[in-house]
Amino acid sequence: MQSIDRLSHNQITTNQWNLREAVEGCVRAGIPWIGIWRDKIEEIGLNESKRIVRDAGLKVSSICRGGMFPAATKEERQKRIDENKRAVEEAAELGTDVLVLVCGPSPGKDIEAARKMVEVGIEQLVPFAEEHGVKLGIEPLHPMYAAERSVIVSLAHANEIAEQYRPEQVGVVVDVFHVWWDPDLYNQIKRAKGRILGYHVSDWLVPTPDLLMGRGMMGDGVIEIHRIRKAVEESGYDGPIEVEIFNHDIWNTPGDKVLERMKKRYLEYV
Amino acid sequence: MQSIDRLSHNQITTNQWNLREAVEGCVRAGIPWIGIWRDKIEEIGLNESKRIVRDAGLKVSSICRGGMFPAATKEERQKRIDENKRAVEEAAELGTDVLVLVCGPSPGKDIEAARKMVEVGIEQLVPFAEEHGVKLGIEPLHPMYAAERSVIVSLAHANEIAEQYRPEQVGVVVDVFHVWWDPDLYNQIKRAKGRILGYHVSDWLVPTPDLLMGRGMMGDGVIEIHRIRKAVEESGYDGPIEVEIFNHDIWNTPGDKVLERMKKRYLEYV
Repeated sequence: MQSIDRLSHNQITTNQWNLREAVEGCVRAGIPWIGIWRDKIEEIGLNESKRIVRDAGLKVSSICRGGMFPAATKEERQKRIDENKRAVEEAAELGTDVLVLVCGPSPGKDIEAARKMVEVGIEQLVPFAEEHGVKLGIEPLHPMYAAERSVIVSLAHANEIAEQYRPEQVGVVVDVFHVWWDPDLYNQIKRAKGRILGYHVSDWLVPTPDLLMGRGMMGDGVIEIHRIRKAVEESGYDGPIEVEIFNHDIWNTPGDKVLERMKKRYLEYV
Repeated sequence: MQSIDRLSHNQITTNQWNLREAVEGCVRAGIPWIGIWRDKIEEIGLNESKRIVRDAGLKVSSICRGGMFPAATKEERQKRIDENKRAVEEAAELGTDVLVLVCGPSPGKDIEAARKMVEVGIEQLVPFAEEHGVKLGIEPLHPMYAAERSVIVSLAHANEIAEQYRPEQVGVVVDVFHVWWDPDLYNQIKRAKGRILGYHVSDWLVPTPDLLMGRGMMGDGVIEIHRIRKAVEESGYDGPIEVEIFNHDIWNTPGDKVLERMKKRYLEYV
């Protein structure tokens, strides 16, 4: 029987809410997990964030996000590492062992050089994360974000990097919106066995209204979400399933309505 | 020394022009090649198109486009094959041996089933194309078009299909806009050795204004066009290089100006 035991509200889906509102919304809706964004923590401070989440009895599925490793200068790259260390600390404080990595765009045209900077950045971050009991989840983004958000744009590439580490250190996050198009998807999900640190759902709308803000609620698009879920589960993932939707129409809808629709669609399509 | 001997004006770049205007524009600009779209042929008829191109002494680099194989019913899929046969005939009549295939989106959610329909469609088309001296060039599109234009979205996948045939029958078309993000790009270009039937250039703008209409003129974006060109040449391609840009700003610019800028940017960035 399907239940919402594994449903996690990635709070970007109700970006109109601050963290307190999102937590209260989850409690009202009976959603047991939340995925938290760092800018929302910053608004009210880490201690207050921690208190709110703990008092509500919510479990934290992940912190979004670390990453953004490539930069033009060594100094700037070091700053990014320091920032990632703060993200690791926040994850540990908030009681999740997953920091999602959006690896960052290239500072110049040389995308291969930027990809090396990502590898070096992860290498520098791993020991610190491990000390804090936090795993790094490399989330390959959709290739349409290669120039502006992440040079890591395929699950194959994310796997390749993750495999340089133990599964307790580095894994991958599978977001259907980012990977559904990949003809090698099911092979790569198999390859990621034991290393999947998160499963994110939303849908791909047709026609696609916008590069960034065009994600849809599950069931409104063309992604075989349930099929991908089964593959991810066969590769050993049984953790929370985050609903992560960037969409102004959804952000303009009252949050409680969004969460109700999310639960319904989760049961129907995920 | 760089020259424009291999420059081809894919006429979508001056979509404001009909075929006659595009041909006259190429002659004025001294551009020796043209890539022709089928809707532009239809406007004035095949015989007239043929006469205009021949009288101008232009060479035709390719016909855009065949493909669009997947459909919900067997009847509709057969119609698509018939349409592709007409495209093959037009290519032969216009004196090019390359029909570019944009393979088409899925009629439903099952993207793997649609990919099989593409394979079946190509299989059905190959003998007819070969009789007409026309090669089928599978153009992998950017993954952001997977739901609306083509389920073939990686050069690896295009290669995999092409390799089921002799290089005289089926090859691949490398368009930088569609493939620049791919971490496996240079391997796949190597793998395509002897099978590359076209090289298309434009640029990826940052920020990216639109999924379909957001392409830029070479040099205005982040793609390592020259590097990819060298790789394509090392894989044996020495044919025409098409400039193919979907962009309303460019379509609103006088065509002669567009071609002058195209020549300049070609010499500088391609």
